[in-house]
Amino acid sequence: MTPAAQAALGQAQTVLGYRLYLEQAAPFVGPQAELRPSGMTAETRRAEEALELAMAGRRAALVSGGDPGVYAMAGAVFETAAARGLALGNGPGQLEVRIVTGTPALTAGAALLGAPLTHDFCAVSLSDRLTDWELIRRRLDLAAQAGFVIVVHNPKSRGRDWQLAEAADILLRHLPPQTPVGLAKRCGRSGESAEIIELKDLAQADVDMQTTIFVGNSTTFVYGGRLITPRGYAAKYGPDGRGAKKG
Amino acid sequence: MTPAAQAALGQAQTVLGYRLYLEQAAPFVGPQAELRPSGMTAETRRAEEALELAMAGRRAALVSGGDPGVYAMAGAVFETAAARGLALGNGPGQLEVRIVTGTPALTAGAALLGAPLTHDFCAVSLSDRLTDWELIRRRLDLAAQAGFVIVVHNPKSRGRDWQLAEAADILLRHLPPQTPVGLAKRCGRSGESAEIIELKDLAQADVDMQTTIFVGNSTTFVYGGRLITPRGYAAKYGPDGRGAKKG
Repeated sequence: MTPAAQAALGQAQTVLGYRLYLEQAAPFVGPQAELRPSGMTAETRRAEEALELAMAGRRAALVSGGDPGVYAMAGAVFETAAARGLALGNGPGQLEVRIVTGTPALTAGAALLGAPLTHDFCAVSLSDRLTDWELIRRRLDLAAQAGFVIVVHNPKSRGRDWQLAEAADILLRHLPPQTPVGLAKRCGRSGESAEIIELKDLAQADVDMQTTIFVGNSTTFVYGGRLITPRGYAAKYGPDGRGAKKG
Repeated sequence: MTPAAQAALGQAQTVLGYRLYLEQAAPFVGPQAELRPSGMTAETRRAEEALELAMAGRRAALVSGGDPGVYAMAGAVFETAAARGLALGNGPGQLEVRIVTGTPALTAGAALLGAPLTHDFCAVSLSDRLTDWELIRRRLDLAAQAGFVIVVHNPKSRGRDWQLAEAADILLRHLPPQTPVGLAKRCGRSGESAEIIELKDLAQADVDMQTTIFVGNSTTFVYGGRLITPRGYAAKYGPDGRGAKKG
């Protein structure tokens, strides 16, 4: 958690969030503050509650896992504010909304695995709860053609178990079966772990809701147990970094 | 800067990095530690120096702007280690390399602008110093077709001034001219600023090396001066968040 996030929690009068995240936030919350835990899927209701409190003049902090701006609560807050026509800003009668960055699974997982994201990449969620599966399929297909390193979020959950195998199939149309793939689990939390497999084994891999998957591009390699996407230095300047430019 | 990064700096015996980043790190460095500033472009040489110190038994910290794993120094370190065949690990005679996450321009800029990254996105660098321009063009083209929010890094620098206009042209083949585009400047540093323009004005926009550009997808909208990509809550559940699922 960043010092800015800790400071924001310390100033909040009400702290809202999913039960598990609220526990992690608790040590930074002031003694007078009210804690309002909620269930996992009540995103919109939680955003509404935070906005209602803020409209009533309270400093409300809505806690999100990872980074609130990456597949997380920042969207629900602004969507709800827009749907209700609330006036945003820091003038009188306006609602001041501030997003405080955290560490998304994207960067936490990359650090755990090595350096997979040192060149162009994309992030795709396999959750079809709010997105048509056809659009997700199309994105995976185009992303593999584009040579992006592909970070796959929400690969699987209870009741959503077939998407990963179909995603792996699509990727295998464009990428070799030996393409290295990193699995980062429980990033930044207790019991975090990293594993590197090959794309051909992804469909059967042991992943869950808390796994973030990093699919390499054609230049990504494994060395010393790390997943590495070169920026091109060694190739371009030679192994000692001082050779002549080739490109 | 995260507490983990501050702790790592406090333990380092030598701290290396680009002059500007080293100044920001200095308050967290122990009094006995040696500081080794270097120029902007000597990435490989800097990584080699850090690895040589570590091989000689010193705790060396290599400081990077933003997050070391996102278009930054983590790649140069592992590439150099691989090119030299160094043994990585935490056993005897092995070199322990640990990547400590920071806040990349991607999440800092998103927070500054609103919530543009709450759905699938990609990151593309316009720097053709180490990447063929044709590959960059192709990635932009496929990314726009895929409906990714597109985060453009390194849009312009001294001596590299025509890529942005060509990139804007490619995006305009697939996206409407009114597509909202966010410009985040000097994210997380003094003088940071955010501005929202339309795609048709991107080619002429006032951007520099320190600007990160967020190109919306077909659902991204502007409300209250913020750039917002919906996850679909309002559309799917109705403005009160409690309507029936449509999809």
